[in-house]
Amino acid sequence: MAYPDTATQSEAIDWDHSFSDLGNRATASEIRELLKLLDRPGIISFAGGIPDPALFPMDIIAKAHAAVFADPKRATAALQYSVSEGYLPLREQIAQTWRDQGVPCSPDNVLIVNGSQQALDLIGRLFLDAGDRLLAARPTYLGALQAFNGPKPTHGDLAELKSGQTSAKLAYTMPDFANPTGETMGMNERQALLANADAKGVVLVEDAAYVALSFDGPPPPSLLALDAKAKGSIEASRVIHCGTFSKTVVPGLRVGWVVAASPVIRKLVLLKQASDLHASSLAQMVLHDIVEQLGDAHIERLRKVYGARRDAFMAALDEHMPAGVSWTRPKGGMFTWVDLPEGLDGAKLLERALAEENVAFVPGAAFFAKDPVRNSIRLNFSFNEAPIAEEGVARLGRLLKRAI
Amino acid sequence: MAYPDTATQSEAIDWDHSFSDLGNRATASEIRELLKLLDRPGIISFAGGIPDPALFPMDIIAKAHAAVFADPKRATAALQYSVSEGYLPLREQIAQTWRDQGVPCSPDNVLIVNGSQQALDLIGRLFLDAGDRLLAARPTYLGALQAFNGPKPTHGDLAELKSGQTSAKLAYTMPDFANPTGETMGMNERQALLANADAKGVVLVEDAAYVALSFDGPPPPSLLALDAKAKGSIEASRVIHCGTFSKTVVPGLRVGWVVAASPVIRKLVLLKQASDLHASSLAQMVLHDIVEQLGDAHIERLRKVYGARRDAFMAALDEHMPAGVSWTRPKGGMFTWVDLPEGLDGAKLLERALAEENVAFVPGAAFFAKDPVRNSIRLNFSFNEAPIAEEGVARLGRLLKRAI
Repeated sequence: MAYPDTATQSEAIDWDHSFSDLGNRATASEIRELLKLLDRPGIISFAGGIPDPALFPMDIIAKAHAAVFADPKRATAALQYSVSEGYLPLREQIAQTWRDQGVPCSPDNVLIVNGSQQALDLIGRLFLDAGDRLLAARPTYLGALQAFNGPKPTHGDLAELKSGQTSAKLAYTMPDFANPTGETMGMNERQALLANADAKGVVLVEDAAYVALSFDGPPPPSLLALDAKAKGSIEASRVIHCGTFSKTVVPGLRVGWVVAASPVIRKLVLLKQASDLHASSLAQMVLHDIVEQLGDAHIERLRKVYGARRDAFMAALDEHMPAGVSWTRPKGGMFTWVDLPEGLDGAKLLERALAEENVAFVPGAAFFAKDPVRNSIRLNFSFNEAPIAEEGVARLGRLLKRAI
Repeated sequence: MAYPDTATQSEAIDWDHSFSDLGNRATASEIRELLKLLDRPGIISFAGGIPDPALFPMDIIAKAHAAVFADPKRATAALQYSVSEGYLPLREQIAQTWRDQGVPCSPDNVLIVNGSQQALDLIGRLFLDAGDRLLAARPTYLGALQAFNGPKPTHGDLAELKSGQTSAKLAYTMPDFANPTGETMGMNERQALLANADAKGVVLVEDAAYVALSFDGPPPPSLLALDAKAKGSIEASRVIHCGTFSKTVVPGLRVGWVVAASPVIRKLVLLKQASDLHASSLAQMVLHDIVEQLGDAHIERLRKVYGARRDAFMAALDEHMPAGVSWTRPKGGMFTWVDLPEGLDGAKLLERALAEENVAFVPGAAFFAKDPVRNSIRLNFSFNEAPIAEEGVARLGRLLKRAI
């Protein structure tokens, strides 16, 4: 049977006309596109934020999967549909980590998500309407800006909340070893944020992606721990805490979590259900088992390895960077933020870095919702082993000496 | 250091005041809440839409995982961050199934998502602004209504598009063995939808979740296949096709896909990236391998087992349903739709069914965006083995005879 009438129709469909406002606003991140091109031989990349796979606990992960499949009842549960809030033993395991800090917490305070990126997407949709004011550090995590782009908020500096003068609805924070700066908030800053958030009724998102990667001792308690301890309950806190296994176990299984007051969790569960029903049952089950087996020794190993790379990276920057260039000295995480002399543009520098020195990084402008500070770049210090990183920093130093 | 000022603050936070419009509109589905209560002993449930785990290809799934972990290079890729569009060999495998049907298709036409529920969420956000008109069958898939709830569309009947008179932006269809009715669109109906969608510039979403579960021979070609063959290219089609492994392999790994014109896929990739970066690398890799190994024999087995259950279920309905009750006779899928006499309410009947007969189903009203038809229920025929299903239908028949 022939299909009628349209066989001669032009191939060109005006999709822009059909797309929503969000659809038309969504544009490719030049940075993420760039990262796809970094496979070329000889390149030294400080661009990624990915963990070193040499540190993946491969054997334990493989065995955890095999153990689930060896038990028909568990295997069935791992492969069947499940509840949107997540695998109860994993939620209980996460709740226990809060009780261990002295914070009352139950599985009703925990939602499992597909990595903490999904937490940000769901939180943005739960709280933000078009035009609502969203605060974030300048610079801040690029993925948070993308996640919060959907509801079309207006953007403000987190400094507004520190000053206590803001009309914001939501404030996004990364208190520990932040992406992209590597900086950590001190106790006074945390307390001021909490007090002002309460005073102004601002919901505080705490992205704790890097908190476990501390090289010089633990950071101050999390915003949620401080607030819930002071008030006696997570239920009284406006802090929504986001965690992930991506930096401490592996990112590829896509499992993260949210800890918050139960009315917030209940709403997030509904949005999660409408978004994709639930996170992988198998991934949740094996991560629960993996975490039980890994214990603290694995995290200590990550801290030691990444901490040594931080040290080597800082020494290389000290040796190779020309005058007029400054950078943060992170106590954890994966990144350092480099301020370049006025007039230099990180994006133009990247073009030259790729062409002249075969070294890559992320231009700083990517980490601003508006009014980007262009004379800046982000460097990852955790992925490359020290000799490679030192060579890369030397290349960057040579380039900067020519560019300045 | 004491936390200042707020220790005496009331625990009651007015979250509704902080939630977005969507946050306040999102409410728990009574049906989904109900489904949580169906574990009680002796109950016979026709409520779920879940596959029978006895048909999961457990051994092949376990071995596919073990094979990935046995190869360090593949294991690393399976556990590391990956690209938002999905695992290239899986996208290529899906593209090949279209070329096998005579439809030119490349991986650029394929996006991998966390189950086809996520496809609906992303498609809704890509096309719908508040107030845009969305068409769907009456009744239609509950999860689609939830997924499209975010942008706050206005709702219309798919019949508008069949008549050619509509101002709709998007039309959601499930042409094969639909949830909840089990009905399949004929060739003429498919062609009319395609012609009218082109004439009116309506984007057609084709949810093909159940297409493989055909018991009486294959259904007509999919909307996308018909349209792309007629026009020579997927690029010229307004059809967005959504597929899933949930009904044919397992649902717990949460992997589905979208096939559409490449400008649509590129935008969906951006929204996917902002939503949760990417689907599980491991799940994508093992599903690729599982599908290669399963071949057609597994699907044939599902068709045979579920088809026999459909036959037994229809025979039981013929035997036990009182006069005045009618139902669909599906040629595939998992559900039959039962029309009850005027004046009966599916929701009230469910209360009695649970109290008096220990049998469960989903009231039909759940499957309407507005103006629900209350004298209807949805029955799943695929989950229970025939003797149990026959007993359940007998219980339901007894109840209906009392209720009418």
